[in-house]
Amino acid sequence: MNFETVKVQREGAVLFAEISAPPMNLLGPDLYRDLNSLIHAAEADRAIRVLVFRSTDPDYFISHVDVTRIKELREVVQISGGKSSPALLFHQLSQSRLITIAEIAGRVRGVGSEFVLALDMRFAARGKGIFGQFESAFDVIPGGGAAQHLTRLMGRARALEVMLSVEDYDADLAERYGWINRALPANELGTFVKALAHRIAALPAAGQRTIKDRVNDIALPPADELRRDAELFIEGLRSPDAQHRLAAALAKGFQTREAEMDLPRMLSDLA
Amino acid sequence: MNFETVKVQREGAVLFAEISAPPMNLLGPDLYRDLNSLIHAAEADRAIRVLVFRSTDPDYFISHVDVTRIKELREVVQISGGKSSPALLFHQLSQSRLITIAEIAGRVRGVGSEFVLALDMRFAARGKGIFGQFESAFDVIPGGGAAQHLTRLMGRARALEVMLSVEDYDADLAERYGWINRALPANELGTFVKALAHRIAALPAAGQRTIKDRVNDIALPPADELRRDAELFIEGLRSPDAQHRLAAALAKGFQTREAEMDLPRMLSDLA
Amino acid sequence: MNFETVKVQREGAVLFAEISAPPMNLLGPDLYRDLNSLIHAAEADRAIRVLVFRSTDPDYFISHVDVTRIKELREVVQISGGKSSPALLFHQLSQSRLITIAEIAGRVRGVGSEFVLALDMRFAARGKGIFGQFESAFDVIPGGGAAQHLTRLMGRARALEVMLSVEDYDADLAERYGWINRALPANELGTFVKALAHRIAALPAAGQRTIKDRVNDIALPPADELRRDAELFIEGLRSPDAQHRLAAALAKGFQTREAEMDLPRMLSDLA
Repeated sequence: MNFETVKVQREGAVLFAEISAPPMNLLGPDLYRDLNSLIHAAEADRAIRVLVFRSTDPDYFISHVDVTRIKELREVVQISGGKSSPALLFHQLSQSRLITIAEIAGRVRGVGSEFVLALDMRFAARGKGIFGQFESAFDVIPGGGAAQHLTRLMGRARALEVMLSVEDYDADLAERYGWINRALPANELGTFVKALAHRIAALPAAGQRTIKDRVNDIALPPADELRRDAELFIEGLRSPDAQHRLAAALAKGFQTREAEMDLPRMLSDLA
Repeated sequence: MNFETVKVQREGAVLFAEISAPPMNLLGPDLYRDLNSLIHAAEADRAIRVLVFRSTDPDYFISHVDVTRIKELREVVQISGGKSSPALLFHQLSQSRLITIAEIAGRVRGVGSEFVLALDMRFAARGKGIFGQFESAFDVIPGGGAAQHLTRLMGRARALEVMLSVEDYDADLAERYGWINRALPANELGTFVKALAHRIAALPAAGQRTIKDRVNDIALPPADELRRDAELFIEGLRSPDAQHRLAAALAKGFQTREAEMDLPRMLSDLA
Repeated sequence: MNFETVKVQREGAVLFAEISAPPMNLLGPDLYRDLNSLIHAAEADRAIRVLVFRSTDPDYFISHVDVTRIKELREVVQISGGKSSPALLFHQLSQSRLITIAEIAGRVRGVGSEFVLALDMRFAARGKGIFGQFESAFDVIPGGGAAQHLTRLMGRARALEVMLSVEDYDADLAERYGWINRALPANELGTFVKALAHRIAALPAAGQRTIKDRVNDIALPPADELRRDAELFIEGLRSPDAQHRLAAALAKGFQTREAEMDLPRMLSDLA
């Protein structure tokens, strides 16, 4: 397993996948293609039991979708497995026999947040992990499942706040809201996740599979609802207002490392 | 927009509605009539996008329903829009195109808590906000949606505790239980809510509308369930035991500012 | 009411039931028989309104099912009320007219955790209460409702973490995850629970009953789902792998006080 934008490291039954798509881990056709390949390869290799995602970039885990390449992304999405959206690849991952864990430092915004929301567990570095679901700044609903997951995890009021405020949420607040399992000290996060991953990988698989299936029966958003949100996102993005706002954002530095360090401020005046 | 019991102040697309129904912001026919009018007027004015509720009384946000005027209240409720209960006015607000925020200091008990639970977001002043759902002291279920909202927000055990304990919950505990979005320092609350309201009002409306609809599809209690709780409340209140308890409470100072500062103690011995 | 493994103490309308099944409060046929008898007796005695469970053992509240006596346990379960599993006795308790409270110090693992999850409220001593759902170490899903309750209380990611990690969770983390209502200082827990129990017992019963029914309508796992998890547990336990792991655990001291003080470490290498 060797990928352009994902560095893979294996330790026994645990696969560590480090997202490395400079300059800022945008989810475009390249990273999508590699994530898709990696996920299918890991799924097919019965010696792999646990899949951990992290980032080589200390400031960005996955920044968001590459808005300049959405058309190409959609082509890759369709070629790579007949799915109609990234949300459905993520949904497949939620149902995988693999146990998946996100180890988060840096920014996880937009589709990045939706990717980790589809994983089985999420741990973030206190003072380093930053979460945002900013799609409403472009007049659209999140397209990759955020409304489905956040509402189920944190309830109506907090989910509305998160998606309507277009603000950043630090790891501690993300924990209090239930966005992540736990915020941990930055210097302990790697050790914690590694130990947990190996612990789970050393336990037998059949009971885990049953547990995951039964939990999914209760808590996993239905595929039809994910599909509907993806359609609403695509429809919304076609509107002149959304297109105007995207252009205004790009003119202000959207999709550059520096400008997105404080994305909420940059998005506050696009009209 | 000018109301006897609600002071309205407008800043751009944000409407601040200050509840001001002396002596203690009881929800009776007057406050209900004004809230109903305000909500419909704001809904109809397309220049208004965000509606913030707060109180001019530092000790009481909305104390609870005025138990001495329930018959009049029900008449006003029916005249003002064909609804069968305050719960359904609140439900309408949950579905409104307006984004609604509660800025809470003082006591929010009974139907007051149910009012803010129907809003989109709730922020409270640490050390000042006080929450209570005390209806079981009068042998009835809350009639305005508390059982529906609290159970969905905080789970079975905490919802039962809150409704059966007849205790006050401070803002910090209310945050830990998910009753509110967040407790904030009292001297920062107003600035925080104002900034959030203006931020949301400055963002485009269509995406927000879609997000709110999709979140409601998942998390909003069904109108039939709200109606059923309202019926159970009204039925329960007719029982001799409930009437006896109401009379005993009124004799002990229920519905007076001083006696309700520590309402849980006063309600602990009505039998 | 007098039982071999449960000491009963009555104060007015509150019944305190102290689990006392040396050497470590395993749930075997004896404790099950006594809990079942106690619950039915309390249910039948209309003078009893609130039932509080605690333990005489400072280290163990209920350790877990006695794996050496599962066959006998199943016989007792069937004799004592036509139920097919402990999960359904617990489910009956969730629907009881009695208000039930767990006062937790010591270890609450496996079916012990599932027992308290079926009660109406759970409070634990900070630094003393320890929670674990370790069934996946034996390649099985929890059989007494944990997957149903934990997923509804804490969401998908935390429920998966808890059931797949086979780790202990202290009272503070259990509160943050929503496993319990609240963690309280160890020296205040008894006073707090006693006051709450008497407060609830002094309030009228009809409204409480309505509230509990309405909350159950929303949040209680369906009996069929509990039954299904119980079947999956029993099926899973019959597998050679599960039997081998049980034997390996027993050889390492499973079901002894000392070895279970740090059960997660002991279970980490059974293969």
